[in-house]
Amino acid sequence: MLYLTRREHFNGAHRLFNPNWTDEQNDATFGKCANKNWHGHNFDLYVTVKGLPNPDTGFVINAHDLSSILKKEVLDKLDHKNFNVDVHELKGVLPSIENIVQLIWKWIVPHLKGCQLHCVKIIETENIYVEYYGE
Amino acid sequence: MLYLTRREHFNGAHRLFNPNWTDEQNDATFGKCANKNWHGHNFDLYVTVKGLPNPDTGFVINAHDLSSILKKEVLDKLDHKNFNVDVHELKGVLPSIENIVQLIWKWIVPHLKGCQLHCVKIIETENIYVEYYGE
Amino acid sequence: MLYLTRREHFNGAHRLFNPNWTDEQNDATFGKCANKNWHGHNFDLYVTVKGLPNPDTGFVINAHDLSSILKKEVLDKLDHKNFNVDVHELKGVLPSIENIVQLIWKWIVPHLKGCQLHCVKIIETENIYVEYYGE
Amino acid sequence: MLYLTRREHFNGAHRLFNPNWTDEQNDATFGKCANKNWHGHNFDLYVTVKGLPNPDTGFVINAHDLSSILKKEVLDKLDHKNFNVDVHELKGVLPSIENIVQLIWKWIVPHLKGCQLHCVKIIETENIYVEYYGE
Amino acid sequence: MLYLTRREHFNGAHRLFNPNWTDEQNDATFGKCANKNWHGHNFDLYVTVKGLPNPDTGFVINAHDLSSILKKEVLDKLDHKNFNVDVHELKGVLPSIENIVQLIWKWIVPHLKGCQLHCVKIIETENIYVEYYGE
Amino acid sequence: MLYLTRREHFNGAHRLFNPNWTDEQNDATFGKCANKNWHGHNFDLYVTVKGLPNPDTGFVINAHDLSSILKKEVLDKLDHKNFNVDVHELKGVLPSIENIVQLIWKWIVPHLKGCQLHCVKIIETENIYVEYYGE
Repeated sequence: MLYLTRREHFNGAHRLFNPNWTDEQNDATFGKCANKNWHGHNFDLYVTVKGLPNPDTGFVINAHDLSSILKKEVLDKLDHKNFNVDVHELKGVLPSIENIVQLIWKWIVPHLKGCQLHCVKIIETENIYVEYYGE
Repeated sequence: MLYLTRREHFNGAHRLFNPNWTDEQNDATFGKCANKNWHGHNFDLYVTVKGLPNPDTGFVINAHDLSSILKKEVLDKLDHKNFNVDVHELKGVLPSIENIVQLIWKWIVPHLKGCQLHCVKIIETENIYVEYYGE
Repeated sequence: MLYLTRREHFNGAHRLFNPNWTDEQNDATFGKCANKNWHGHNFDLYVTVKGLPNPDTGFVINAHDLSSILKKEVLDKLDHKNFNVDVHELKGVLPSIENIVQLIWKWIVPHLKGCQLHCVKIIETENIYVEYYGE
Repeated sequence: MLYLTRREHFNGAHRLFNPNWTDEQNDATFGKCANKNWHGHNFDLYVTVKGLPNPDTGFVINAHDLSSILKKEVLDKLDHKNFNVDVHELKGVLPSIENIVQLIWKWIVPHLKGCQLHCVKIIETENIYVEYYGE
Repeated sequence: MLYLTRREHFNGAHRLFNPNWTDEQNDATFGKCANKNWHGHNFDLYVTVKGLPNPDTGFVINAHDLSSILKKEVLDKLDHKNFNVDVHELKGVLPSIENIVQLIWKWIVPHLKGCQLHCVKIIETENIYVEYYGE
Repeated sequence: MLYLTRREHFNGAHRLFNPNWTDEQNDATFGKCANKNWHGHNFDLYVTVKGLPNPDTGFVINAHDLSSILKKEVLDKLDHKNFNVDVHELKGVLPSIENIVQLIWKWIVPHLKGCQLHCVKIIETENIYVEYYGE
């Protein structure tokens, strides 16, 4: 079994706040991330698939094909977007990277052929990242 | 003459658009950066000062003092903010990093003692950065 | 299950030598790392916790809370310290990063609530790092 | 169980093409990587071993010894080489990093004492890497 | 005056050897880089332009336009190429990064409008880079 | 004129304190860096030389020769050393990176032939670096 990882990049704006809470509760929990006028990040996305190399190509998956899937299924929906406002599937969901990696997992799985999705990882800042293995 | 550089980090949201232009003109020039619901970035700020080392400390400037100045004069105004909405001095100004480095220069200069400001640099993505030397 | 990783940073001095060995044995095994006047490193600490996101926050753990735990339980004990001299729990222990990650594991575990410690990783140089998963 | 990782670096040239295919098929699958005059990369190699720290040294393996093994068993065979032409074991094999990590695994295993090989990882570009765990 | 830098990336193969020299002279000077079957690198290209921000856009140059120029004038000629064989302008020239940055300078200058070329920089490995300022 | 930069790496321990000051003054100025039992860092050294490429080699300087000079003249004196104790030329000098880059300049200059020293830069942490241009 070989594991191949492809990195992509997207930028976006979001706001972390719980509409069921008071402003004081939101500020105490989310701090500056609750700014009502939004803030944003550069997000690095690492997607890992696993499988056996195809003997004709030497590839688990052609990295250019994986990149095309990620651009169409993920980046077109998230890049330069406001996650709270512009992303249908995040309506009513806190747009933490914990919730976003699970959404990306669902978006990618149906499009992979000949290999399995292993991990979706998002680096939000150089100090924080989240990984999801599908269960 | 020695040059000391201190890095700080801030996140923010912005929108690049010219209110005197049509939506079509804005889209043609700014592309996804014109998204009306904002997008954002992780910004790395590098501030370089120059001077002679103080013989008592070996420092051009105490890097902790420089960091304190940057936190108070720059990061408190920009970190986790919407540059178009939350930053008084950017009202009516396109919040490109070209314009932001010039503003940061003005904010820092009055607070440096015993050394001169040499360069303000902002890295917006791993592919784009801007530098300003004060003239 | 989601995995969240927080990076922190500390600097320190140490010396790798075995007091039961001759200087020749120490030099043969530890080379320059046995310098009796110490040497040091920048250490990057990556701590990974796992759990389910809290539906109220979207977080496995609030990264600011995790950072506070790491600052109090780890960095206050190791940052800008001499690991052989200043760290009580390392007395009589070779201060290799293999031994330090195990110590950090013990320091952190009692302070995590609502999630489990998954991995402690230290990067000693860009060419060497160690990971510990608790068993 | 502790996991220690050592990074090494090598450069090389290769060409991705399948001799049983037409030029059109090769271009469609491998694109620019099929250039008949070769292209090349900087490859970062990360080798992870696992084991218990030796109480006399604090080490799972002495990182300098691991580096020596990697230089002799891997870098002498791959560094500044043409993988299609200069590497005996890659004759008739597509020199994808999927195939190269498996070869490196075989080269290293016989030379490790007191610890087990856990992972061989090659970073081909900042956007693509492959990992192999031996099965 | 503002300085904007755009990064691009290309891979390539080359061989450093002087056809007027013996193999021994070439080996003594270029070492492994003289391998007759080629080797290669990942090259990071940083191009810096200087000028005044356009008041309508806030930009010294639209970074997407600069990227388009670099893709057409530089990457189409160098990416995934053999510099000794595939690049007309490098025939008879040692394809060191010193010589390549000068060639890139000539390729870019005629295509910049409203700003001046300031620096062309190539990073060949994490340990070596070259900069050219046009004189 | 071309500018070539070579990176090298060294680790070391140091203590920042002024022997003419009280402990309180030292703590107020140097904070944790005044720890009497030392602390340390990974230091990245970037040395830039300038000159015309040699037509026989394409090189401003052979990067391997520059590396040999740096290993002999700089790294043998600083790597895995205690800067306050082990380095003769730093006796009585505050071992700040401002003072160390000037010392490295003096060490390198006599050994360069066919090119000029342009800049000595040390990165002490990812947040602080110093550059010296010889005047």
